[in-house]
Amino acid sequence: MVVVLKPGTARSDIEALVESLRELNVEASVTNGIGCSILGLVGDTASIDMDKITLNEHVDRVMRIQEPYKKANRKFHPEPTVVQVGSAKVGGGNFSVIAGPCSVESEAQIVSVAESVKAAGAAMLRGGAFKPRTSPYSFQGLEAEGLDLLLEAKAITGLPIVSEIMSPKLCQVFEEKVDVVQIGARNMQNFDLLKEVGHMSKPVLLKRGLSSTYEEWIMSAEYILAGGNPNVILCERGIRTFETYTRNTLDVSAIPCIKRMSHLPVIVDPSHSGGASWLVESLALAAIAAGADGVIVEVHNDPKHALCDGAQSLTPEQFGSLMGKMGGMVDLMGKRIVQ
Amino acid sequence: MVVVLKPGTARSDIEALVESLRELNVEASVTNGIGCSILGLVGDTASIDMDKITLNEHVDRVMRIQEPYKKANRKFHPEPTVVQVGSAKVGGGNFSVIAGPCSVESEAQIVSVAESVKAAGAAMLRGGAFKPRTSPYSFQGLEAEGLDLLLEAKAITGLPIVSEIMSPKLCQVFEEKVDVVQIGARNMQNFDLLKEVGHMSKPVLLKRGLSSTYEEWIMSAEYILAGGNPNVILCERGIRTFETYTRNTLDVSAIPCIKRMSHLPVIVDPSHSGGASWLVESLALAAIAAGADGVIVEVHNDPKHALCDGAQSLTPEQFGSLMGKMGGMVDLMGKRIVQ
Amino acid sequence: MVVVLKPGTARSDIEALVESLRELNVEASVTNGIGCSILGLVGDTASIDMDKITLNEHVDRVMRIQEPYKKANRKFHPEPTVVQVGSAKVGGGNFSVIAGPCSVESEAQIVSVAESVKAAGAAMLRGGAFKPRTSPYSFQGLEAEGLDLLLEAKAITGLPIVSEIMSPKLCQVFEEKVDVVQIGARNMQNFDLLKEVGHMSKPVLLKRGLSSTYEEWIMSAEYILAGGNPNVILCERGIRTFETYTRNTLDVSAIPCIKRMSHLPVIVDPSHSGGASWLVESLALAAIAAGADGVIVEVHNDPKHALCDGAQSLTPEQFGSLMGKMGGMVDLMGKRIVQ
Amino acid sequence: MVVVLKPGTARSDIEALVESLRELNVEASVTNGIGCSILGLVGDTASIDMDKITLNEHVDRVMRIQEPYKKANRKFHPEPTVVQVGSAKVGGGNFSVIAGPCSVESEAQIVSVAESVKAAGAAMLRGGAFKPRTSPYSFQGLEAEGLDLLLEAKAITGLPIVSEIMSPKLCQVFEEKVDVVQIGARNMQNFDLLKEVGHMSKPVLLKRGLSSTYEEWIMSAEYILAGGNPNVILCERGIRTFETYTRNTLDVSAIPCIKRMSHLPVIVDPSHSGGASWLVESLALAAIAAGADGVIVEVHNDPKHALCDGAQSLTPEQFGSLMGKMGGMVDLMGKRIVQ
Repeated sequence: MVVVLKPGTARSDIEALVESLRELNVEASVTNGIGCSILGLVGDTASIDMDKITLNEHVDRVMRIQEPYKKANRKFHPEPTVVQVGSAKVGGGNFSVIAGPCSVESEAQIVSVAESVKAAGAAMLRGGAFKPRTSPYSFQGLEAEGLDLLLEAKAITGLPIVSEIMSPKLCQVFEEKVDVVQIGARNMQNFDLLKEVGHMSKPVLLKRGLSSTYEEWIMSAEYILAGGNPNVILCERGIRTFETYTRNTLDVSAIPCIKRMSHLPVIVDPSHSGGASWLVESLALAAIAAGADGVIVEVHNDPKHALCDGAQSLTPEQFGSLMGKMGGMVDLMGKRIVQ
Repeated sequence: MVVVLKPGTARSDIEALVESLRELNVEASVTNGIGCSILGLVGDTASIDMDKITLNEHVDRVMRIQEPYKKANRKFHPEPTVVQVGSAKVGGGNFSVIAGPCSVESEAQIVSVAESVKAAGAAMLRGGAFKPRTSPYSFQGLEAEGLDLLLEAKAITGLPIVSEIMSPKLCQVFEEKVDVVQIGARNMQNFDLLKEVGHMSKPVLLKRGLSSTYEEWIMSAEYILAGGNPNVILCERGIRTFETYTRNTLDVSAIPCIKRMSHLPVIVDPSHSGGASWLVESLALAAIAAGADGVIVEVHNDPKHALCDGAQSLTPEQFGSLMGKMGGMVDLMGKRIVQ
Repeated sequence: MVVVLKPGTARSDIEALVESLRELNVEASVTNGIGCSILGLVGDTASIDMDKITLNEHVDRVMRIQEPYKKANRKFHPEPTVVQVGSAKVGGGNFSVIAGPCSVESEAQIVSVAESVKAAGAAMLRGGAFKPRTSPYSFQGLEAEGLDLLLEAKAITGLPIVSEIMSPKLCQVFEEKVDVVQIGARNMQNFDLLKEVGHMSKPVLLKRGLSSTYEEWIMSAEYILAGGNPNVILCERGIRTFETYTRNTLDVSAIPCIKRMSHLPVIVDPSHSGGASWLVESLALAAIAAGADGVIVEVHNDPKHALCDGAQSLTPEQFGSLMGKMGGMVDLMGKRIVQ
Repeated sequence: MVVVLKPGTARSDIEALVESLRELNVEASVTNGIGCSILGLVGDTASIDMDKITLNEHVDRVMRIQEPYKKANRKFHPEPTVVQVGSAKVGGGNFSVIAGPCSVESEAQIVSVAESVKAAGAAMLRGGAFKPRTSPYSFQGLEAEGLDLLLEAKAITGLPIVSEIMSPKLCQVFEEKVDVVQIGARNMQNFDLLKEVGHMSKPVLLKRGLSSTYEEWIMSAEYILAGGNPNVILCERGIRTFETYTRNTLDVSAIPCIKRMSHLPVIVDPSHSGGASWLVESLALAAIAAGADGVIVEVHNDPKHALCDGAQSLTPEQFGSLMGKMGGMVDLMGKRIVQ
């Protein structure tokens, strides 16, 4: 941490400040410039509140140097984390495709989609049982029954299941029934929920918040890791910008940046990013080219009658075609598609 | 709702679409332009998923005309809602000041701050017991003990207390101990929590999410209203933009816009918006001038040693000075400060 | 400037870096932390390209400490600049209202509006002769003829005139005919134009770009100041955010922030910020409460038939009512309205 | 265009409005819903100012249906435009790589870089002679001399040259010396400049503004097309968002979206998007995978001593390696690299 002092700060004031910093268990060395002094702070600066130092009347600015995350930090864990889900793997050269409908709607629907995506080469089945909807008047999901229908689809296809959790009170049932616990974008900083899934044994798929920085996103993963759960998969799903032609703006740079900052795997959701089925292929291929470890794609057997997000869902045929193109791209990037 | 058809759509295709819309309980009238037809939809369009209509191969675009919110809509409830909290009122010409520390830290601290802000004219006491922190390694609040310390400060000063809830499992204890239940920006779309506070009897202070539109914000209030709780106070606290000089960007236009869209009262948090104590006065006065029904301000008896957000907290002296200036501004706007 | 080195950088590499920095005329003092060294740079660091230092293989990060602007910097010029325009003044306790139509449309129109706003108390007349329009098919202004019509309105009312310049080739005619030269948001970083107006004798009204930071905005003013023109008035006119209910988002925090960073006066354009006439009053009052030195407001004698921006224009009657309310607010803030 | 009327508008008021719209040469058909009427407008609605209709007291909202651009619109020009530059082609299955330094610094530098990028397979040479710099104190380019040095590099290598124009007064010299005229992001809405390059015979590379929507970007291209110059290449170079880890956020969705909206070719600048040399490869490959027609990449023979943007420049060796990887990706996408 670096503390920049205001021009003309007296030597005695500097010394008093250095002394007060020592109480916070950090050592400060002083660099005296022409009319401006700088303190370099050494020690456990991650636990210091920068803002508080700013309150000192002689301080002009405080700048953090070390990242505030530890367990998720690539500096201290250079090897990429590989998350194992049944026979599937995410990370470290393995590319996994998660596919399925936005919402579980019926046994016939989820089994049909599961069989289609399995046949096309997906590694896991996604399906929402508890749905976060902007409107209280929209379909909120089949809830507990939805999880049971997912289990039926799993029994038939063997595909591990990924579903979104919205409340800490559901951790027990998700622990029992689900293979990967998804935290949605709107709950990325629902810290209470993050703490609870940190105690689960199942891998967590953590979506990026709509306006969360890379650092905030990794800090949310750090909550889960700090709770004892090392299996976090990060998922970029588009951020909110001024552009309204697409639902959100896929931040493809997030992939190489997160890989530089952290050892956790990163996948991409091309369906929610763009909000339109005709955009999925371009965004999925771009994600692979930028180094993603997987994609999560919405597939519905009858998009026109889907209970939510039909406009961004692929038909099984479109998904089959996409799998073919993704296969070539994954090969070119030197990775392998796992199933 | 308006459905724009692709150029050259055949009459028979239009008729088939009109028929299929009838199944959704909406009537469509056709306007035939030169090479482009438009359908005007009438009926319960709020319950229709626009996206799904978009999937029809002849549809170019779908545009919503009616607002998706009902109970919060000013059109159906022209009179402003006034939320009563003890003897204080928010809305309808009443201006309320909520003040107190970011976090409850000790009995001495919260009582001291409560007495100071009461003396200066605040109507309610704020104080965080459960704290949403970006880092799992930061102070997370005194939790249940914090609520009890707030109750002691209330017993001494008579100030109703406002505190943030982070988990549905705390609804019962908040129902018992707190006068206004705060939902923080990061939980604005924690729908599970919204549903639960919709069943509480206590007023809810709903902060705007960092990147939430006015409509999304009102839709979150709609969740609470739909649950049966009519007492929602909206709180603008700055949005996330590209500008980093301030912590967030106070969107002062939100005040007149929300008042046009909804009958719910709107207050402003000038402390979190700017993230700096020297900005609080300017932003609080601007909020009043734009029509706010109140402000929520961070005050700490010793900002330099505050356990969180010290840099944006006012001292009791600064708060007293601010109250004087706000008083003149509230008078000028034809409102009265309530206590 | 502070240079953070990568963990484990060898002493000899540090010394080589310090030596190479000396060639750039800066002295570096080394702070050795546990596993991490920091260089504090002293000298003319404003002229150094931070990015280039970043390229050194041992450098982790470079952070700027000093502001890159000099002439506009409040640190070196604590007194507020007051810009004189005829008998009107902007800055330093003087509040000026600039009013008039988006575009000059005819002699009758501009004279009528000029007389109305003069009667209501405006200090200057605005009117666009050269119009920046998103579409090449929209009305582009009366151009040179528009300036002459403004001069007629000035001859009749005595109001100084403010008009937007879009091209360096027009500097001479603007120097002759206009009292304040406006640079629009879209040209805030048209550096060629900034250099040219830096050589003019007339004050410059510099609007903030739609996505420009405070620092970039001040740097654009610095171009004008560096060219020899000290009379720059900054104008906040709303920034681009994700919110689309308003045309732009008025960043009211810009006012106190710019005043802290710079000595230049700051005014606000409540008409373009919101894009709706019903928002103008709230935004104008908020701007005054936040410390603005003036406002620039669109007024049209017949908004429904305005050739551009009718939806955000006030009628003369609405403007008269606004002047009354602004007067009370300016008084309360301890400033005086100049005419 | 669709006009939504306020609930309860009288039949006579609707008729009066329809009559007044007829004066604007549009026909309106009325759809009467339950308590809400809608007007469907047919005719030359592109030339109507939506805002003005909004001013009618009975109008609730106006929504545009047709795109405001004509010449750039894919609907009226389904075949992709292919821009020919010497023997190189951009668009329609042709992939062109433009490479070179941010700034032309010396004959030795530009010739060396030109030879390197030619050898590696670039189709054109970029190099800035007139530089848009945020600070008036930064290096502003070699100006006219820079263009001559580019011509020397062209004479030696045969590579067509691409350089940025910043002022209308330079159109003549650019017409003579440059093969592709670049308009930078900061000048995307410098309409005066757009009009001038619309009269040039040379192709124009139009970068997207930092906070410009797709529609605004295409409208700026429309200015050039409307001026008579059909050869516009659009260039996505990252937009401004809240994320600061990267310089800007590459909006990879822009590629498929622009291709759907317009027939003009789209290339990507991975160097300015990310602002870091280590990001260039990932972003360039993602751009190709998303369908880009080319890339423009910064290459410098000695990045550490570059006069600008060194941190994002590749060395000739890195560029050679990138060309290899891009080649495989372009093949996979079924396009061919042109030279």
